[in-house]
Amino acid sequence: MVKYSVHALTRTFAALADPTRRRILDDLGRGERCVTDLARPHRMSLPAVSKHLRVLERAGLIRRHRCGRVHSLKLEAKPMKAAQEWIEQYRRFWEESFDRLDDYLNELKTKEKNEAKKKQI
Amino acid sequence: MVKYSVHALTRTFAALADPTRRRILDDLGRGERCVTDLARPHRMSLPAVSKHLRVLERAGLIRRHRCGRVHSLKLEAKPMKAAQEWIEQYRRFWEESFDRLDDYLNELKTKEKNEAKKKQI
Repeated sequence: MVKYSVHALTRTFAALADPTRRRILDDLGRGERCVTDLARPHRMSLPAVSKHLRVLERAGLIRRHRCGRVHSLKLEAKPMKAAQEWIEQYRRFWEESFDRLDDYLNELKTKEKNEAKKKQI
Repeated sequence: MVKYSVHALTRTFAALADPTRRRILDDLGRGERCVTDLARPHRMSLPAVSKHLRVLERAGLIRRHRCGRVHSLKLEAKPMKAAQEWIEQYRRFWEESFDRLDDYLNELKTKEKNEAKKKQI
């Protein structure tokens, strides 16, 4: 199995394990935003949003620029690459399980057809 | 952006946000194991391993079979598919940033070559 920085992976997955933080990343996927713009759709207090932003910053998933008193935030997707590669190792397992489900459904269909034929005879 | 079950994604990412749980999944990727076999390489107490196994079970990432008094565990990778697809949406961002790094390194190489040429003249 591929080796990655254990701590970086843990920080990335932990940062993604929250719906508000994932929505913030979605928002930043549409372009840079300032902190107040990010807080508005989540109906959250600025301190609450700031807490989530710190988690995302520590994971290296966003970068903060200061333009005077305004903090502007930008998406930094690089850490997601390692997370994606880690999960990718398991693709054959979920594809196998979907194949098994397909086989089972095909088997059911064949049985149904055979039953229908028997009834016709 | 693609829609997934918010809670399921949160549970999956939270389950992956721990190095011991990721190693347990690695172990199970090599085949079914019983709880004591899983605990051994991590030098952890059975209750500590059981706590991690419960998190993985709740996320649907492992399945437990009971053969009498022995609990055997199996990897269930299906929930990882949604996690992988969620991250995949950001691929263009990390690829863009690696492209920018490539451009910068090529620029540096060209500069170095030009400098070397000037010195030769």
